[in-house]
Amino acid sequence: MIKKIDHLAIVVKDLEKEIRKYRDILGLTFLGTEVVQEQKVRVALFDIGGVHIELVEPLDPDSPVSNFLEKRGEGIHHIAYEVDDLEGQVEVLKKNHIRLLNPETGKGTSGSKIVFAHPGDLSGVLMELVEKKK
Amino acid sequence: MIKKIDHLAIVVKDLEKEIRKYRDILGLTFLGTEVVQEQKVRVALFDIGGVHIELVEPLDPDSPVSNFLEKRGEGIHHIAYEVDDLEGQVEVLKKNHIRLLNPETGKGTSGSKIVFAHPGDLSGVLMELVEKKK
Repeated sequence: MIKKIDHLAIVVKDLEKEIRKYRDILGLTFLGTEVVQEQKVRVALFDIGGVHIELVEPLDPDSPVSNFLEKRGEGIHHIAYEVDDLEGQVEVLKKNHIRLLNPETGKGTSGSKIVFAHPGDLSGVLMELVEKKK
Repeated sequence: MIKKIDHLAIVVKDLEKEIRKYRDILGLTFLGTEVVQEQKVRVALFDIGGVHIELVEPLDPDSPVSNFLEKRGEGIHHIAYEVDDLEGQVEVLKKNHIRLLNPETGKGTSGSKIVFAHPGDLSGVLMELVEKKK
């Protein structure tokens, strides 16, 4: 079962410039930045009422996010929902013909398990499901 | 000051089909549908931990949303944040050269006041600010 929105990911070209907007102009709580080597991106994290906004800047033309930036430009990349039981929810998706981007669940940050569903099966929205480490 | 995410709006082609996915497959709390004549759209509302997901289907080729659908296809249309003091936040945006789509604040649902900021000034994200009726 989906519990809450975990985060929204937004692809940006210039992370420092956008951090200034979200922190200083919009006044969201800035939690810091981290480099995710596997994805070749740098991420700035903000909290807004328990939901995170993740600004994502590609560090390399090989990053999956560089591809998005080239094709679509800056903008919202995906919505991530937190679930209790990822395996159970994945079974529900499969049964209902919503394809996954990877056949198996993968590893997210802080020991979480994650999966992405195909945007073509969900009105153009790339959806991530996250089960936090218990 | 921004308090929370109020809603995420997602443009869809076939509202009934997407309601079934969000309600029956993802299990979000379905709040009902409404027609917004001014925008020539029909909207399905869902709640997820106090944040609304709004699925928006254009009812007419003249709808502003039809234009989005034609250019970009289905997908996330905007993020709306709830603010305490819309006029104050608008002044902050103007001072920081973030353009508004309309020069003055407009009327939203249930007596709320709203404004949209230009996506070109916020990394491709169309942002709505909402002040609820007190």
